Amino acid sequence: MKAFMDKDFLLDTDTAKTLYHVYAERMPIIDYHCHLSPKEIYEDKKFRNLAEAWLGAGDRCGDHYKWRALRARGYAEDSISGPDDDYKKYLQFVESMPYFVGNPLYIWSHLEMQRYFGIYDIINAQNAKKIWDKANKELETLTARKMMQKCNVETVCTTDDPVDSLEWHKKMSEDASLKVKVLPAFRPDKALNVEQTSFAEWTGKLSAVVGRPLESLEEFLNALAERIAFFDSMGCRLSDHSLEVVCYAPATYEQADAVYRKGLKGEAISRDELDIYKGYVLTFLGKQYVKYNWVQQYHIGATRNNSAAMFKKLGPDTGFDGMGDEVFISKLSALLSALDECGGLPKTILYNLNSRDNYALAVLAGCFQKEGVKGRVMVGAAWWFLDQPDGMRDNIETQMQVGLIAQSVGMLTDSRSFLSYPRHELFRRLLCQKLGRLVEDGVYPAAEMSTLGKIVEDVCYNNAKQYFGF
Amino acid sequence: MKAFMDKDFLLDTDTAKTLYHVYAERMPIIDYHCHLSPKEIYEDKKFRNLAEAWLGAGDRCGDHYKWRALRARGYAEDSISGPDDDYKKYLQFVESMPYFVGNPLYIWSHLEMQRYFGIYDIINAQNAKKIWDKANKELETLTARKMMQKCNVETVCTTDDPVDSLEWHKKMSEDASLKVKVLPAFRPDKALNVEQTSFAEWTGKLSAVVGRPLESLEEFLNALAERIAFFDSMGCRLSDHSLEVVCYAPATYEQADAVYRKGLKGEAISRDELDIYKGYVLTFLGKQYVKYNWVQQYHIGATRNNSAAMFKKLGPDTGFDGMGDEVFISKLSALLSALDECGGLPKTILYNLNSRDNYALAVLAGCFQKEGVKGRVMVGAAWWFLDQPDGMRDNIETQMQVGLIAQSVGMLTDSRSFLSYPRHELFRRLLCQKLGRLVEDGVYPAAEMSTLGKIVEDVCYNNAKQYFGF
Amino acid sequence: MKAFMDKDFLLDTDTAKTLYHVYAERMPIIDYHCHLSPKEIYEDKKFRNLAEAWLGAGDRCGDHYKWRALRARGYAEDSISGPDDDYKKYLQFVESMPYFVGNPLYIWSHLEMQRYFGIYDIINAQNAKKIWDKANKELETLTARKMMQKCNVETVCTTDDPVDSLEWHKKMSEDASLKVKVLPAFRPDKALNVEQTSFAEWTGKLSAVVGRPLESLEEFLNALAERIAFFDSMGCRLSDHSLEVVCYAPATYEQADAVYRKGLKGEAISRDELDIYKGYVLTFLGKQYVKYNWVQQYHIGATRNNSAAMFKKLGPDTGFDGMGDEVFISKLSALLSALDECGGLPKTILYNLNSRDNYALAVLAGCFQKEGVKGRVMVGAAWWFLDQPDGMRDNIETQMQVGLIAQSVGMLTDSRSFLSYPRHELFRRLLCQKLGRLVEDGVYPAAEMSTLGKIVEDVCYNNAKQYFGF
Repeated sequence: MKAFMDKDFLLDTDTAKTLYHVYAERMPIIDYHCHLSPKEIYEDKKFRNLAEAWLGAGDRCGDHYKWRALRARGYAEDSISGPDDDYKKYLQFVESMPYFVGNPLYIWSHLEMQRYFGIYDIINAQNAKKIWDKANKELETLTARKMMQKCNVETVCTTDDPVDSLEWHKKMSEDASLKVKVLPAFRPDKALNVEQTSFAEWTGKLSAVVGRPLESLEEFLNALAERIAFFDSMGCRLSDHSLEVVCYAPATYEQADAVYRKGLKGEAISRDELDIYKGYVLTFLGKQYVKYNWVQQYHIGATRNNSAAMFKKLGPDTGFDGMGDEVFISKLSALLSALDECGGLPKTILYNLNSRDNYALAVLAGCFQKEGVKGRVMVGAAWWFLDQPDGMRDNIETQMQVGLIAQSVGMLTDSRSFLSYPRHELFRRLLCQKLGRLVEDGVYPAAEMSTLGKIVEDVCYNNAKQYFGF
Repeated sequence: MKAFMDKDFLLDTDTAKTLYHVYAERMPIIDYHCHLSPKEIYEDKKFRNLAEAWLGAGDRCGDHYKWRALRARGYAEDSISGPDDDYKKYLQFVESMPYFVGNPLYIWSHLEMQRYFGIYDIINAQNAKKIWDKANKELETLTARKMMQKCNVETVCTTDDPVDSLEWHKKMSEDASLKVKVLPAFRPDKALNVEQTSFAEWTGKLSAVVGRPLESLEEFLNALAERIAFFDSMGCRLSDHSLEVVCYAPATYEQADAVYRKGLKGEAISRDELDIYKGYVLTFLGKQYVKYNWVQQYHIGATRNNSAAMFKKLGPDTGFDGMGDEVFISKLSALLSALDECGGLPKTILYNLNSRDNYALAVLAGCFQKEGVKGRVMVGAAWWFLDQPDGMRDNIETQMQVGLIAQSVGMLTDSRSFLSYPRHELFRRLLCQKLGRLVEDGVYPAAEMSTLGKIVEDVCYNNAKQYFGF
Repeated sequence: MKAFMDKDFLLDTDTAKTLYHVYAERMPIIDYHCHLSPKEIYEDKKFRNLAEAWLGAGDRCGDHYKWRALRARGYAEDSISGPDDDYKKYLQFVESMPYFVGNPLYIWSHLEMQRYFGIYDIINAQNAKKIWDKANKELETLTARKMMQKCNVETVCTTDDPVDSLEWHKKMSEDASLKVKVLPAFRPDKALNVEQTSFAEWTGKLSAVVGRPLESLEEFLNALAERIAFFDSMGCRLSDHSLEVVCYAPATYEQADAVYRKGLKGEAISRDELDIYKGYVLTFLGKQYVKYNWVQQYHIGATRNNSAAMFKKLGPDTGFDGMGDEVFISKLSALLSALDECGGLPKTILYNLNSRDNYALAVLAGCFQKEGVKGRVMVGAAWWFLDQPDGMRDNIETQMQVGLIAQSVGMLTDSRSFLSYPRHELFRRLLCQKLGRLVEDGVYPAAEMSTLGKIVEDVCYNNAKQYFGF
């Protein structure tokens, strides 16, 4: 029996142990996609206690995974996202922990206690008070920035709206005391979502930022281009798109402009019109990204705000999103092909939310390569609900079988919490476990161990550094 | 090498053995969804021989899994569902057994011989006569009820049409000699299937049962409500819906009533009209289920009667159904959300037939929780074609990774045969195997063994007892 | 640690070793579906060097898998499919090899070096020259036919257009020196693709071959029937259809004829019209296949030529195809049911390209069995992108869980290369690994070892021989 989550956690062969401890463990973290608050990084957020840091609290958007698990346990919303006492919230989470058996929360939570707080106790009701006291003592000095440094985080990319002033990024770029490179990433979902009631309002914000009216699509796109130039000047290297449904149809400017104008007026937009508008705008943006040699990310297949009742109560991004099952390959193929033909296909990372699409997406990525780039189009790490041991294993194995894992840019947290960096560790351990297994099973030669070590270092760090150009 | 199917079958670690033999094995069975005949239970069906008990025969609907395998072997239908000699049927099944390598039939059949008949021989041609003789001798006293008792079955829920008089359930409730609690379950598929030619006829039956005409949808729904009240008075705790395709659209009473009237007249119903009608009726029923604190089950994605030729020959439910691949998440999400908003979302178990939907369904379930209920909406056990080792493992692992396996209500047989209870045993062994693996791999601490044992007991028995309120 | 790819490669239990070395290894290969050139077999193609034989070159269509991997590495197209120097092409492939860790190319390439050339070196930059020299020396005598003999290939079915004269097959049938039975297979995709611009042109070719005008669908179908009779006379035992999307609707002759005439005129064909036409033609063909007791193959779900830019540059079948995600079960079910009802459902092998459809397809196959045939409809081996260790394992396990692996007709290469036969070996090793595991885990009795050995021989060879009637 292996010891519970010790230094060789998940490393079940000697090769895996070597790969992890000699190569993977010491590589810095590049967290190229997350939802941390630039303001909290700049201000070096101090947490009042473990409940706030671990579970989210007050006006901070918390950890969806934990909230969802607590809701499934039947706890009152007041003690999850609501105003209840911090210790009560903490205690019900800790008491629930043994019942999270098999869930990634069990692993993550213990890794978080180990790595940030040096707490190696089993998380359960009996140890609740002890853990609370020790962690809170640590939190007196363990601020947001210290959390990042403790995890050897070198670079972080936040997620930012095109209308954002990036004021906190500016301050950070001028703050010599900040040891982590924090860069913005361009997330223009609101520019794409012409069908949403908030479109006109958001366009108004963009108009204000660029200081001119945006009556035509051309003006709108020029404004976006201006923001891209600004983001680039602030060190941005990536864009990011959430494509709940993949929309694309070949279209003329006039067709797309007509949809834009309907969106501004709040008129109903048909699915065909979405194909026209979104395809056109994505094509425009792709060309811009190519110009700046950015990497674009497509996050495909989330379903948002499944519970209307809870959306009314708590708003978006509070743990009520899901995994879609729409057919999308042919539209995505047409979109990528069109981008490529017009010189608008930058380096691109495709993320699928439904694991059943792993294979089709990885195979599609392989159809759009380019001379001089290792993986012009590639699939990303296991995303969101797939960001757990089985999901990561499936993702790694898919990349192996129909792609090249050696060229992967590795893990990201996609997280709103400063305590999520051990997910990189979990990924690295699983990667080394799998690679170690190949060697132990005689599928890859032990004689190539130094090359394999280099591959591990590449996937953990070097590939991302080179691919994004940090 | 492990011995062939001995007491430690599938238990590949010491932890798994402890979890199974100390905790799982002794828990009674709650079989909360099956297709047993209430009449046969009441009359304590005696089987003329092993062929009848094992393979189905005469006018009894047999075991689809076995029939399908025999058809794939190329045997004549007469010797499968037809009038051929019992021993011939038995023999061809037994001779085929070695060629079922890797198929769950191999495991189930041997478990059935072991548990019901004390027969530990390998099932093959050489042992055919010996097994036949011994099992038939046992069957002289091993009646339906004794089969249930032998497997420590405590509670069984049958599957009953709303127009059913539940006469056999009534008799059973008055029969002190019956040691198993047998309850009806409400299966109103025919009330939903407004598009089928049999709709008007079935509505006529319902009209006769309630003793009044059902000209409007309102009258129809009131009749259903009356039957729900009656079923509840007879101890019913669950409803069950087969949603081959998930239908839902927001609709007014007038719209739904119009579709109802078309259905009564046998007019063609469009897909949009199905969304209106089925969504409306499911919403009505959901509110009724909430009123009685029932659990509703949605069985999603079966395709029925794929072979028109065999449907004409044998009718429904004879082994020609399949696994659909339709997209359904967004409609199901809208349906559950609408139910929740109008107070019509009872405790709900979602079953998917296509394993590729495991993840999306489990994630969706997590969006509809409720204070005070452990798993208001949850996914069920691996269903039908997924009810085999790989399918159950995938189901368990999905529940672990994106749900809470500790809250699962465990296994059910969904079976037409009294010989299917070892499927509970198979599930329990796989559950203990998986949990044991977590401990042995250092993913869950051995120090929490007593909690883990309690979780095993909960999943095998306690959770179902509490969730359904038996 | 197991040795790297030695004689016990993938055989991780004693049972697996016995099954492989005693039973599987010595069985001849029946490669019932491939894309080898009949001309090259007849002419006993001699390769100028390892680059040509291994990677494809010049006007020969190469190995898509290798090309795709090289493109992902960022190499120039000229050095992949283009005019660059052979050794340069070879070297960049060999230098890339260590970075194919986990990819099937790593396994295949080493198996290919071992089995054809007796080269047991690790493929990497250091060994590049040594391997090049040794392999090229072997290639002086190792011609196409010798490659086949070296792999114990007994029967090969090529893939042939209905208008093909089968001249090379004729020559081969008269060539006593040819030790491999090479048969044509009927691939009438172009007869089905009424929506493609090339339809009229292809119909013209068919018209020329049969020597009469094909103005009506009836004339067209009669011409196809004539070609089927001709193919049958040339030893053909199989047809093959690529169904990118499954099309079917019940239709009259008049409806189908109308679509045919539109196709001839190059008019746009709607999706509904495709359902009519393709369903009608597939039904006609099915009846023909039944008449000759052929096996029909449906390859379902490829997406072709995803990159428009590369299609313009290189044409079809050059490594830019993908895996579709369309819903197709209900149409396929209706098609198979209709075929069955009209006596037009021959023995049929269904292949899915997207692994997420494994289960639904295997279950559907089980609905269309027939007295006297073992597996009238069955699923085929893991196809194309699934033809790698994980894909084959999933395929084998699916066949086990919801079908009968013992009746499988085993592996095929589907390849354009004479160096692909080790894929049969890889499949056999994986099959024996899995069966061995069942025995070692106590799921199948060691006492049935001789039966299990027979099953292995059946799946490797006997089943195909009997099913296809070679």
